[in-house]
Amino acid sequence: MNLRIPGPTPLPLEILKVMGNQMINHRGPKYEAMQKEVVKKLQKVFQTENDVFLFTSSGTGGVEASITNTLSPGDKVLAIAAGVFGDRFAACAKAFGAEVVKLDFPWGQAADPDLIRKKLKANPDTKAVLVVFNETSTGVTNDMKAIAEVVHESSDALILVDAISGLGAIDLRTDEWGFDVVVTGSQKAWMCPPGLAMVSVSEKAWKAHATAKMPRFYWDFTAMKEFAEKGQTPFTPAITTIFALDKALDMILDEGIENVFARHRRVGEHTRSGVKELGLELFADESCASNTVTAVKVPSDIQADELLRIMREDHEVLIAGGMGRLKGKIVRIGHLGYVFEEDIDEVLEAMEASLNELRR
Amino acid sequence: MNLRIPGPTPLPLEILKVMGNQMINHRGPKYEAMQKEVVKKLQKVFQTENDVFLFTSSGTGGVEASITNTLSPGDKVLAIAAGVFGDRFAACAKAFGAEVVKLDFPWGQAADPDLIRKKLKANPDTKAVLVVFNETSTGVTNDMKAIAEVVHESSDALILVDAISGLGAIDLRTDEWGFDVVVTGSQKAWMCPPGLAMVSVSEKAWKAHATAKMPRFYWDFTAMKEFAEKGQTPFTPAITTIFALDKALDMILDEGIENVFARHRRVGEHTRSGVKELGLELFADESCASNTVTAVKVPSDIQADELLRIMREDHEVLIAGGMGRLKGKIVRIGHLGYVFEEDIDEVLEAMEASLNELRR
Repeated sequence: MNLRIPGPTPLPLEILKVMGNQMINHRGPKYEAMQKEVVKKLQKVFQTENDVFLFTSSGTGGVEASITNTLSPGDKVLAIAAGVFGDRFAACAKAFGAEVVKLDFPWGQAADPDLIRKKLKANPDTKAVLVVFNETSTGVTNDMKAIAEVVHESSDALILVDAISGLGAIDLRTDEWGFDVVVTGSQKAWMCPPGLAMVSVSEKAWKAHATAKMPRFYWDFTAMKEFAEKGQTPFTPAITTIFALDKALDMILDEGIENVFARHRRVGEHTRSGVKELGLELFADESCASNTVTAVKVPSDIQADELLRIMREDHEVLIAGGMGRLKGKIVRIGHLGYVFEEDIDEVLEAMEASLNELRR
Repeated sequence: MNLRIPGPTPLPLEILKVMGNQMINHRGPKYEAMQKEVVKKLQKVFQTENDVFLFTSSGTGGVEASITNTLSPGDKVLAIAAGVFGDRFAACAKAFGAEVVKLDFPWGQAADPDLIRKKLKANPDTKAVLVVFNETSTGVTNDMKAIAEVVHESSDALILVDAISGLGAIDLRTDEWGFDVVVTGSQKAWMCPPGLAMVSVSEKAWKAHATAKMPRFYWDFTAMKEFAEKGQTPFTPAITTIFALDKALDMILDEGIENVFARHRRVGEHTRSGVKELGLELFADESCASNTVTAVKVPSDIQADELLRIMREDHEVLIAGGMGRLKGKIVRIGHLGYVFEEDIDEVLEAMEASLNELRR
């Protein structure tokens, strides 16, 4: 099966191999050395000198951690949303008692920095801006450099970033652009199985943390930091997934992060041009189309579920459907992690054949 | 290395093998069928007809879920503690605003049901009793049948059980004895890598959930239930660890849970008698000694760290040290999951040789 959903992504053989390694003691020197190395390597890809923590959870756990560690109930947050994951970020903040000011953009478009500036001017007491780097549900990548600039120039708010499906595939400069908490997940660009959320924490986020009153226990940054100094986590970590991440980071750093970004750009462009050559329409504005996931409008004469089924059953190619209100309206091709042009050619061939079959 | 800490535990070859399986779609029919089967098999080992959920987290995440899903800030809970994990359960409830009435027992002893009865009589407004089935830090198993009886006869409180290091190795009858939320972790008796918390939820817990106001998002039972009906989880699950759990459950059910319990009893007794034959003292009262972990007092002429180091470096046997206030005072032999008498013989031989070496 050619698995081309926007995560989990297929694992390279080198990663599958280390997944079969025997358990080790998570409180012993071998594990500790590995965790410290993994964190150092993650810092390179996060482009940060901040702390980076490994939470045993899916990415959403990291999103919850970013909120509960830096905010208090009643704090105002500006939640920028243009898709399922933007909505989820806002919903999570609301669940913990934040006063959520929502700034919605049309699905398929990027967030407009000018409107963010206006909203921040109108809400000078905003404690944090919540933003999704790469909106998996619509195939849109936000202009994070521009967003960071308007936030920094117009407020003192923290920037919390759901970078789950973008980081490690698309350039995101945590320190240079100035993001306070950045969250990603192992099953995305990292070529690993799901089960780890990786989260960076800036000095400014630590200051906010010192007075943040939202309740937390499993996600507590203070406990994470205390144990991280020993190369440990407070609670038993997903050791096997960390074996995988260790190996994956070597692969990423060997290829070079600039080359990894360039490969994703190339594969993204290849996907979009291939889709258009099939006579299909892209869902996302091309100016902000993601290089990790491409959303394709389902033609009006085609049922999305049928297209997915025939691609899967007859062609062994698995892509994703639409989420939320886009269900039935789009399909999504994942192209992140261990992915090359040839993988996408298979997807496009399967898509073309399936469309022909459905129209016969 | 003979890894004999009380989790993570060594994985049988059959499990290591499936860990190398390629990723699949967590929203597809293959995954959905697997998750449904895993839940059915878990119900057999939990001895329950209740919902059983799979959280991507370590066991402590499941503990947090048990609290935040059933309680509101200000609710009174009775936290029974006689070790690090009892204290942790209480601390987690406190972090989310519960009014915690602590009932401490001496470390190394089991909870006394009569004192629980008295405490409940004195606190008739207790909403939940928090109890650790098997206290990993002291090597003690509580008499859960007796505890359930006194709680049910003297109050209407929920019983939330941290069964992380006991369930699947020692008989715990979720429905027959009446426990409302039972939590365990994949790296314990389940012969799997860490990364999954498995949590059962009774009808009574669902009723409490309906009005429980502690904030929750990642751990929310309602979302879990909605997705479980499709064989899914709300957020991307640790697919590989579920491959492992699926296989492990087949092994457990093939052996038969009564036989698995009997094997742990046998190995537990073998460990305790072997330790005593070395002239060492058990830390836990023998009346309540755990069949998954044995705590051994470190003789006054021996440094615990040195003993652990020599066993590890010279004999390739890894056991655990003491936790919290028992650090340096005890060492702990884990014997849960895929464990047989011969594994323990190796531990005992290494321990004897290391003691001799240190005393030379």
